[in-house]
Amino acid sequence: MKIGKKVWAIAEGYIPGWSNGPEPQLASHEAVCILNTCKRDAHVEITIYFSDKDPVGPYKIIVPARRTRHIRFNDLRTPAPIPRDTDYASIIISDIPVVVQHTRLDSRQDANALLSTIAYAQ
Amino acid sequence: MKIGKKVWAIAEGYIPGWSNGPEPQLASHEAVCILNTCKRDAHVEITIYFSDKDPVGPYKIIVPARRTRHIRFNDLRTPAPIPRDTDYASIIISDIPVVVQHTRLDSRQDANALLSTIAYAQ
Amino acid sequence: MKIGKKVWAIAEGYIPGWSNGPEPQLASHEAVCILNTCKRDAHVEITIYFSDKDPVGPYKIIVPARRTRHIRFNDLRTPAPIPRDTDYASIIISDIPVVVQHTRLDSRQDANALLSTIAYAQ
Amino acid sequence: MKIGKKVWAIAEGYIPGWSNGPEPQLASHEAVCILNTCKRDAHVEITIYFSDKDPVGPYKIIVPARRTRHIRFNDLRTPAPIPRDTDYASIIISDIPVVVQHTRLDSRQDANALLSTIAYAQ
Repeated sequence: MKIGKKVWAIAEGYIPGWSNGPEPQLASHEAVCILNTCKRDAHVEITIYFSDKDPVGPYKIIVPARRTRHIRFNDLRTPAPIPRDTDYASIIISDIPVVVQHTRLDSRQDANALLSTIAYAQ
Repeated sequence: MKIGKKVWAIAEGYIPGWSNGPEPQLASHEAVCILNTCKRDAHVEITIYFSDKDPVGPYKIIVPARRTRHIRFNDLRTPAPIPRDTDYASIIISDIPVVVQHTRLDSRQDANALLSTIAYAQ
Repeated sequence: MKIGKKVWAIAEGYIPGWSNGPEPQLASHEAVCILNTCKRDAHVEITIYFSDKDPVGPYKIIVPARRTRHIRFNDLRTPAPIPRDTDYASIIISDIPVVVQHTRLDSRQDANALLSTIAYAQ
Repeated sequence: MKIGKKVWAIAEGYIPGWSNGPEPQLASHEAVCILNTCKRDAHVEITIYFSDKDPVGPYKIIVPARRTRHIRFNDLRTPAPIPRDTDYASIIISDIPVVVQHTRLDSRQDANALLSTIAYAQ
């Protein structure tokens, strides 16, 4: 069964500048969770938008058939790492239908905070 | 009145590996909340997707007529428990329309954190 | 401009059983936020669903023209208060289009936690 | 590619009345994150709805072509600042398609709390 859409957007984006707690679980991070329920691999391209400069991307990712990948924006490297403590947004475009959810863990203070939302699909 | 859809997906999934605070309320957990407003029972099947192995399921659940069930992924046992501290995702398929919401309580640090989102429906 | 839908559902519902911090702001609570952008009042009926007993309602609420109301489930009294530390869900039906969002503040531990999501609309 | 919608609504709105932690990152705030993937600027108008008085607005904002802006409601000034510790809601209307997400950081207690959700689109 094909579940999802090919075009997704996340208007919020922010990697906190510091962390408290054991790594890697409690490092402050922001993730895009992608689920591919199809029988073939999804080729996904992420583009990052900023408030004061041109978009950067695409970041190319493969989500294998019938797998999920929870990708930390912190770990994206090519074409360029995403700066910390900086507002951004992202679009996620796949060649086959996928489902996308956005999550942040913020451990800047003594106890961590979480947010999550389904992304915008069209 | 029939409210909802038959096919839902949650791309985020993660059961924190430890907890602080009184059980069962403040045990770290992740839940799928299902609402069945119909006059007959909903037969629901959950399939769990991973990043590095084949999907596991279906986990078969009945949500009785005009009831809600908030099911902790922690408590799923058959066909197999869901490992802790591991990325996963889920699809939820019902034979009649239901509404699905995803919630996590993370009490790994001194104060708990929460996230919640409506799931993706189609 | 009419913005919204007439039928909404929130599959998650839980009023934490205790609180830390100054009242009323930091009392643990769960709220349904309703926005009525229309030029006439919205007559809203909320029904509460449980895991182990019949639904309770309707709770009748008026959201005046061009106003928002953030209603704490804690404060609903007629036909019956909602029990604490108990799973529930809700449907929200309005006679004109409204927008509905779900929020919880949980202050059971030393620092509060928050969750929020757009409700399911149809 | 045009991604998004022109009319958005956020039924929840609340700027916490106080904060703990370093400014500006950990000041309690509520933000509307807007992503404009189009090749021309988006002219956005925000209107704020209250529980007990007429709406205030429009707050006029430009989101430049291929940029995101994460606007703190705390910083809106014209036609009037938004009061703290007060329930509100908002509609966001753009002349071209945009994507809108709602986020709050609440640092009233020792550790911050976060919430976020995709806004309602039509």
